[in-house]
Amino acid sequence: MCDLLRINVDRGVMIGDGKSRFSINGQPIFHFVGTSTFSEYTVIHVGCLAKINPEAPLDKVCVLSCGISTGLGATLNVAKPGKGSTVAIFGLGAVGLAAMEGARLAGASRIIGVDVNPAKYEQAKKFGCTDFVNPKDHNKPVQEVLIEMTNGGVDRSVECTGNVNAMISAFECVHDGWGVAVLVGVPHREDQFKTHPMNFLNEKTLKGTFFGNYKPRTDLPNVVEMYMKKELEVEKFITHSVPFSEINTAFDLMLKGEGLRCIMRMED
Amino acid sequence: MCDLLRINVDRGVMIGDGKSRFSINGQPIFHFVGTSTFSEYTVIHVGCLAKINPEAPLDKVCVLSCGISTGLGATLNVAKPGKGSTVAIFGLGAVGLAAMEGARLAGASRIIGVDVNPAKYEQAKKFGCTDFVNPKDHNKPVQEVLIEMTNGGVDRSVECTGNVNAMISAFECVHDGWGVAVLVGVPHREDQFKTHPMNFLNEKTLKGTFFGNYKPRTDLPNVVEMYMKKELEVEKFITHSVPFSEINTAFDLMLKGEGLRCIMRMED
Repeated sequence: MCDLLRINVDRGVMIGDGKSRFSINGQPIFHFVGTSTFSEYTVIHVGCLAKINPEAPLDKVCVLSCGISTGLGATLNVAKPGKGSTVAIFGLGAVGLAAMEGARLAGASRIIGVDVNPAKYEQAKKFGCTDFVNPKDHNKPVQEVLIEMTNGGVDRSVECTGNVNAMISAFECVHDGWGVAVLVGVPHREDQFKTHPMNFLNEKTLKGTFFGNYKPRTDLPNVVEMYMKKELEVEKFITHSVPFSEINTAFDLMLKGEGLRCIMRMED
Repeated sequence: MCDLLRINVDRGVMIGDGKSRFSINGQPIFHFVGTSTFSEYTVIHVGCLAKINPEAPLDKVCVLSCGISTGLGATLNVAKPGKGSTVAIFGLGAVGLAAMEGARLAGASRIIGVDVNPAKYEQAKKFGCTDFVNPKDHNKPVQEVLIEMTNGGVDRSVECTGNVNAMISAFECVHDGWGVAVLVGVPHREDQFKTHPMNFLNEKTLKGTFFGNYKPRTDLPNVVEMYMKKELEVEKFITHSVPFSEINTAFDLMLKGEGLRCIMRMED
């Protein structure tokens, strides 16, 4: 975790001089979380820049940004499921499906998707989902359903919703003695994670991750290489491609849960 | 974690036939948590029996039981501080001092003892304590004091109190990015561990341990060997030795916080 460049959604300016590098009609346009990439050119701190393979198609590898690298790294770098293990993924948006892809690449043999939207199951199958659980189909906490399904709990769980109750379920559903839960979703400011401390004494481990424990400058080029070597299929994350002028269409698709990742095309 | 022999303070009988092996004047005497060792002879499940070096003096190695092995293993097997690291130990009873001994053996260079009883500091120095913090001396949460003292947080913390607020402090005082907190103390049934989930996303890890992750049958003989090789000095944990008939004196010493471990001598 870099103290200097740690994510800061409020700063909006360059660190060096506290000023913005963008303006329109004399009014400053602020920087967004250190990258400000809704433009063809940008000005960023050198620490926010990663040099990737120049052969990589930008209209594909641009999706290996925050969410998808985070999900992938959450499983590959943090949860680290063993071959043949059972993994539960909470939340089947793009981040959760990237976490699922990581579980598949790591050799997990049973991958349980958990989502309140049953329509997510079909798409999740492409990412290795073997079982689907909708918490709304059960009148007991979903962690109890998962513990029963797996005869004691899953080996690993990855939470990709940002919902604090899903975080608690993701932790409590792992097996005593060796289970590891990894939190990825960004919680609300006032959320409280609550659990009985005996769960820790029973040797369940709880971790979280920021950007999947990848260091962007040094590790992101290697994630791009995974795509170039066809180990990682980026295309299945891309559901829509729209011109920049239709950006609100992309947001609508996201809010409806119909899109995973939408490529914005710069206008000619 | 053994499903069959998992600790059960309510059972009180042998697993095989659900009966007690002890009686006095025809009345059954129940078994205590699988061992019932307040006697010269006992009857226990074979899984509760560990064969140790026959040269080991029983009036010393008997203290390598639940608490001290748990504390030692919590650091050596679970927290695993690196050489030169900073470790905070919450609670300086026998379990905490054993955890401290583990931190010293692992090569930690700064070991911060946290206890509400300032008298504990002198004894803790024998176990490698370099700094002492009394939460009552500060008008802010002790995790904030520790974060300031260590310029960002400790590398490892081990909680040995059973107090849920100490558990929360022990977790929140570890450094973002790599800090690991290990819970050892047994909580109350109605306790809730509460924290902001952002602490996990900032890459603090929370674990707990039961019996210091030692497997009693296979690992306890090796803990005894640590004593036989003089790597582990058991004597400094023994503060009193009383005959069995004065057992209540031992409990009084414990409740006053004056004793660490008291050896019961069988009457001649």
